[in-house]
Amino acid sequence: MLTDFWLSNGVKFFASGWTQFAMAFATSFLLMLLFGRPFIRAMVRWQKKGQPISENVPQSHLVKAGTPTMGGILIVISILIASILFMPIHNPSGWIALMALIMFAVIGFADDYKKVTSQSKKASNGLSAKARLGLEAVCVGILAFLINRVMPPYVPEYSLSLGLGVVMPFSEIVGYIFGLISNTVPMMLTLVGGIGLYYVFSYFVICGSANATNITDGLDGMLAKLYMPVLVVLTVALYGATRIGFMDTVLFMPAASGLYAVLGAAFGAILGFLWYNSKPAAIFMGDVGSLALGGFMGTVAMLLKSEIVMGIAAGMMVLILLSSMIQTLYFKATRRITGEGRRVFLRAPLHHHFEELGWPESKIVERFFIVSMLFSGFALVLLKFA
Amino acid sequence: MLTDFWLSNGVKFFASGWTQFAMAFATSFLLMLLFGRPFIRAMVRWQKKGQPISENVPQSHLVKAGTPTMGGILIVISILIASILFMPIHNPSGWIALMALIMFAVIGFADDYKKVTSQSKKASNGLSAKARLGLEAVCVGILAFLINRVMPPYVPEYSLSLGLGVVMPFSEIVGYIFGLISNTVPMMLTLVGGIGLYYVFSYFVICGSANATNITDGLDGMLAKLYMPVLVVLTVALYGATRIGFMDTVLFMPAASGLYAVLGAAFGAILGFLWYNSKPAAIFMGDVGSLALGGFMGTVAMLLKSEIVMGIAAGMMVLILLSSMIQTLYFKATRRITGEGRRVFLRAPLHHHFEELGWPESKIVERFFIVSMLFSGFALVLLKFA
Repeated sequence: MLTDFWLSNGVKFFASGWTQFAMAFATSFLLMLLFGRPFIRAMVRWQKKGQPISENVPQSHLVKAGTPTMGGILIVISILIASILFMPIHNPSGWIALMALIMFAVIGFADDYKKVTSQSKKASNGLSAKARLGLEAVCVGILAFLINRVMPPYVPEYSLSLGLGVVMPFSEIVGYIFGLISNTVPMMLTLVGGIGLYYVFSYFVICGSANATNITDGLDGMLAKLYMPVLVVLTVALYGATRIGFMDTVLFMPAASGLYAVLGAAFGAILGFLWYNSKPAAIFMGDVGSLALGGFMGTVAMLLKSEIVMGIAAGMMVLILLSSMIQTLYFKATRRITGEGRRVFLRAPLHHHFEELGWPESKIVERFFIVSMLFSGFALVLLKFA
Repeated sequence: MLTDFWLSNGVKFFASGWTQFAMAFATSFLLMLLFGRPFIRAMVRWQKKGQPISENVPQSHLVKAGTPTMGGILIVISILIASILFMPIHNPSGWIALMALIMFAVIGFADDYKKVTSQSKKASNGLSAKARLGLEAVCVGILAFLINRVMPPYVPEYSLSLGLGVVMPFSEIVGYIFGLISNTVPMMLTLVGGIGLYYVFSYFVICGSANATNITDGLDGMLAKLYMPVLVVLTVALYGATRIGFMDTVLFMPAASGLYAVLGAAFGAILGFLWYNSKPAAIFMGDVGSLALGGFMGTVAMLLKSEIVMGIAAGMMVLILLSSMIQTLYFKATRRITGEGRRVFLRAPLHHHFEELGWPESKIVERFFIVSMLFSGFALVLLKFA
């Protein structure tokens, strides 16, 4: 908004994507910092007993009882204000990303609200799984439709905002294989398989992201710390997509330039949230935060055609999600075959497994953070060379 | 080493600085991870009682008794192996950075060794302050001499690996002021004031860095986490210095390209160390680690002519160092004037002040980490726009 105002008044400073990024970052970080404390107090008054501690987590989590949840509300508001202030207002990509944020935040809020008001300890006391996945499907349908309208279609030469590396023999091979997969999969989906499969793919990417972030949000500060490296990778992908010549063969998508302010705002809000959420947490983000951030992440990746790169960058979250799915499937399969259900992990998702092994919470978060940086580093290598 | 071998055999892959960075990163990270556990066991056997807990820290630190120190030895060895394997062997800049690492590691080792073997609880039981600062001065003299021989001299048009921004009005002003300072200060030092002042400047930068990292290393995982953002900034400065056109007006210094492998190795070693050093720490790095990393950081900044940018990126460490100096000076001044020494902070350095205020250790580390990222973000803005 301000960007357009200043531009129309001849101040070119805001034309730069990095300026928008930096201003939005600073704004949302300050909003989080300033309103964090009064917001936490308000949530404590409103929720009284805080989020009930699920019966599915280790005993040690009982000390967290009384900590308020729904910090995600403040995250979402901060991102909205900072983005709208500094993004170019006529560029649709920023709006689509913000739409994803709001829609998934609403789903998450409904979930949180049921949990907090019912004060039941059952894990399944939010929205029913069916209702949630159904609502998410509707949101993804709208988002996928819009993304498909606004961004360039997939073409064989480019995809994932990457193409084939031509600089070096090694990267040529990796780039070829990677390019082949990344080109043909969406191609098949969009062209051969028809538009229907494109929606399936979108559901997989956006809902997959939302559920991965949702399940990752289980230890103090963890989601914030695993989310930041992914944001860095998406920002580099955005730079590659809007600046000709920075990456060797990259799809030039000026339509994506609305995302600078939005990504900057997300980064600032996450960092500001970590200020209060780091161990020992004064507030949790709740589903309203984790689902919103996940839907946002998947949508931005689709806008930038960086779905696979994002999936690799978020590898640690994917592992956490997989651990939970493996646990459930294995338990059901063994129960059907032997009559007695068995478990792969001491407790799912993965971080609870390590808690049962006796790792302190801070150690788990730090080590998951380290692994997450490794995944993101690998994603950057792919962005650069593939 | 391998880089040259492969290059001479026609494999161009290793010509890329980023490849060297990535390979050295992976190598030193894996070295840390693989040898971390046996190294910790060896240090426990050797040191028996571990580093004595200084009488100058809060009571809560007594639980850390028995944790071995000198993890820096493994850090330094990992950086050396990974760097030498992947850096171009005839480029002097990498060697100078490694020299700084080794020289300051030796000073730190002497300090640690005295502390561990004497098992005295006095803070001053390592090397005497005079001996340490004297030794450091000798090292800086050698380093400054070499840097001055190898890198291009300061010129009015360029400095700090930046020049004046010419893109936007705002940045022009900031860039002008910043450029004026950054150009004139070293100019004065090297040209007007003569070569002697250049050595004073070097002492200030390199020893300042070493003492800042040394004093920062007081809580589990803290130095590692405050060090990483600075490494990111130095890496971006390196990219700006070796790639024409990435930054608008930047001094092109191909001589710096030897630093890719070295910075990658440092990053990997720090991340690998954090695996074991994150709260609750299984090992501390000791002075052998913190002094080595600090001397290294200052030397790399001088090689890249990014001293001020580095100083801003390391702003959190500078604040910690300042808090300690202010505490001492204020205490002495008030004692002289009123006869009774007063204190500004409950306890110096800064992190102990917050411990006395009742902040949990993990909270302090996380928040200092956040502030450190803000400082580094600001340094990146200066690199880009100034």
